[in-house]
Amino acid sequence: MRMSDLIIKKRNGQTLSTDEIEYFIRGYVAEEIPDYQAAAMMMAVYFQGMDAAETAALTMAMARSGDTVDLRAIPGIKVDKHSTGGVADTTTLVVAPLAAACGVPVAKMSGRGLGHTGGTLDKLESIPGFSVYQPMDAFMELVKKNGLAVIGQTARLVPADRMLYALRDVTGTVENLSLIAGSIMSKKIAAGADAILLDVKTGDGAFMDTEEEAFALAQAMVDIGTEIGRETVALVTDMNEPLGEAVGNALEVQEAVEILKGERTGRLLDVCMALGEQMLVLGGICETAPEGKEKLAQALHNGQGLEKFAAMVKAQGGDPRIIGDTDLLPQAKGRVDVAADKDGYITGIGTRYIGEAASVLGAGRLTKEDAIDPAVGLWMHVRTGDAVEKGAPLATVYYNDETKKQEAAGMIRDAIEIGDTPPAQRPLIYGMVSKEGVERY
Amino acid sequence: MRMSDLIIKKRNGQTLSTDEIEYFIRGYVAEEIPDYQAAAMMMAVYFQGMDAAETAALTMAMARSGDTVDLRAIPGIKVDKHSTGGVADTTTLVVAPLAAACGVPVAKMSGRGLGHTGGTLDKLESIPGFSVYQPMDAFMELVKKNGLAVIGQTARLVPADRMLYALRDVTGTVENLSLIAGSIMSKKIAAGADAILLDVKTGDGAFMDTEEEAFALAQAMVDIGTEIGRETVALVTDMNEPLGEAVGNALEVQEAVEILKGERTGRLLDVCMALGEQMLVLGGICETAPEGKEKLAQALHNGQGLEKFAAMVKAQGGDPRIIGDTDLLPQAKGRVDVAADKDGYITGIGTRYIGEAASVLGAGRLTKEDAIDPAVGLWMHVRTGDAVEKGAPLATVYYNDETKKQEAAGMIRDAIEIGDTPPAQRPLIYGMVSKEGVERY
Repeated sequence: MRMSDLIIKKRNGQTLSTDEIEYFIRGYVAEEIPDYQAAAMMMAVYFQGMDAAETAALTMAMARSGDTVDLRAIPGIKVDKHSTGGVADTTTLVVAPLAAACGVPVAKMSGRGLGHTGGTLDKLESIPGFSVYQPMDAFMELVKKNGLAVIGQTARLVPADRMLYALRDVTGTVENLSLIAGSIMSKKIAAGADAILLDVKTGDGAFMDTEEEAFALAQAMVDIGTEIGRETVALVTDMNEPLGEAVGNALEVQEAVEILKGERTGRLLDVCMALGEQMLVLGGICETAPEGKEKLAQALHNGQGLEKFAAMVKAQGGDPRIIGDTDLLPQAKGRVDVAADKDGYITGIGTRYIGEAASVLGAGRLTKEDAIDPAVGLWMHVRTGDAVEKGAPLATVYYNDETKKQEAAGMIRDAIEIGDTPPAQRPLIYGMVSKEGVERY
Repeated sequence: MRMSDLIIKKRNGQTLSTDEIEYFIRGYVAEEIPDYQAAAMMMAVYFQGMDAAETAALTMAMARSGDTVDLRAIPGIKVDKHSTGGVADTTTLVVAPLAAACGVPVAKMSGRGLGHTGGTLDKLESIPGFSVYQPMDAFMELVKKNGLAVIGQTARLVPADRMLYALRDVTGTVENLSLIAGSIMSKKIAAGADAILLDVKTGDGAFMDTEEEAFALAQAMVDIGTEIGRETVALVTDMNEPLGEAVGNALEVQEAVEILKGERTGRLLDVCMALGEQMLVLGGICETAPEGKEKLAQALHNGQGLEKFAAMVKAQGGDPRIIGDTDLLPQAKGRVDVAADKDGYITGIGTRYIGEAASVLGAGRLTKEDAIDPAVGLWMHVRTGDAVEKGAPLATVYYNDETKKQEAAGMIRDAIEIGDTPPAQRPLIYGMVSKEGVERY
């Protein structure tokens, strides 16, 4: 087998066999196949695509390219939840404890934020003392004991994906559904869960701009799950405005705690309930989604979700007192409101721009090497469709650096559109994709 | 400017500017742009193509990427002739001396053979003592004095093409007209000629299999010439059987000498006359092609062509006595005939296979590093359409290695089809492409 022949085969629109795809991935990870041949292959795939069997073979070859996690020692159906990322997407901090409280073991490997999107690891690390790096046996023990642990992906997990993604990023080959779906799914499969719940975001703050693109990605990932026999369900949810109200690491932890205490409701909780009910069904805890929702509501109201969260914080070295007093989280030195400059309705929120404003303040990173400031960010006070009066606060900026304050405040002001008439309503959840098919809400 | 943006631009079907193409080529040669980005760009070009202006910009950027030859010190219109390569394509050894004898200065840089095709440098080096490596000033002096010199391309000529071609060869991105045309033309332009005559071969022994592909390549190269203001004419000629009778380095020199002595006629001479008359027109020696043909015929009959060849051999260190006695060329130890196994007509000759048979004997190289044997090869005794009787010799194999003799003889036997009825006639020259348009013969 020669890599140049495989490139030509794909270039000419033919189908690669599982053996050929494994040869490529194994050779690439072993550095026997050079970057330039992998880049040519990625561009050929960009133009010619991959069918379901090829995509599944690529995903499995990547999943097996490094260490894999074996969760079989943990009883029950382990369900992983993955979001394609967005702004104020604090779902993991809310839904993982609630699902764990209902009896679904959650052994989760999360990622960091990049660009305008946040990352669960960064949020958890804003809790004083919290450690996202645990040896594998300790991780397993935490899940067995508490039903819940969230850690960082180890360096030896799916090296093929890490290498290929870095290559695709600089060779114009990111935007291909099979490659995007394979990248996400290979990490979930290597992380060992029995079932996978995907939260595919759509909107200007998401990776997938349009609803159609989001459903296509959801379908591609569900197809991989079906092809390889790992049950996979995807919800397509809205990212045309920040999901939660808080944008920034400690602020998002605060919001999650307040939700788990039953002090807050809204879009973030609604999405968490929709995700959670599917996790309970996938985990075999309930037969139907409405049953799942009921169980989740109980865990929320009787405080068991909050208890799971507190237990996880304590078990992973964090200061559990932040639950009782969120002021013990890192606090920004100053805060300033961004006010409406006229009366009207919020007709649109530039979500990506809001995420970038938080990054400017130091809440996010522009490159993988940047350090982040856990305390800073912003708190949104308005939602699309809200009526506002001139002078009313649209958002509050939490800053540590005076020089960044004005820039971020300006960006937030620019991101929030105020018009004369209320905008059309948009769904929060657009639909669900499973092996049974597509259901649009 | 960022290379990843340029890749995406081309991937999306947009047109690259001259500045952008120059940025790419300059950066690639300077090793600031890595192979993997160049490979992704080449694959994007494979799918999206390049328009005439982009192709010309790429060609000029490559031509200027290293040393360029300045032939202005040589009086007259310097005309370069280039063949896209084939089997028994000995045209340079015949037409260059004839054109030089008619007053066209020929300062030619040639290449080596690879795979089933031969190369002019390898053929000339079969002449004892002949040196294809001359310092640039010596090269100029030879052309000034003798009107003719043929040397090897220096390592510093068009490094961009050398780098890109090596990359394309292993990334499935060879087969794109703009890239093929740009590769050929960049070398011709860097070599400094005022006008360029191209011999685009078509047939199973050529790079371009079909007539349509050959005309398309001819058009692409003429378009580059027109775009950059360097007069370019292309003939499309047949490579569905070996052009000359001899295949192998010393054997081809022998055939060329015999033609220049007026002892041989046939397809090789016919193509040389067609090429030569265009060289004379491009070189401003004649107004029309028929005038050119008459002058060439004179140079052939009065021995001036042979004299030019002899003068070149002597000037470049070769033994001029080979002209009078071609037995002084390297001789193979043995020869054996391949006989017809039935009566009939030659209905087809597998040209590529004939070239590969010569390579098996040692006349060609499979990789750039292989050494070649100047003495070996084969001599064809039949042409497509000839009537043959069982037992008549189809070709004679010249071998030095007994073990290769049978393999090559078998390949030659397999390559020559004998049928019951004569095949349809095929043109030797299919047409001409110039800035005036396409003329099909």
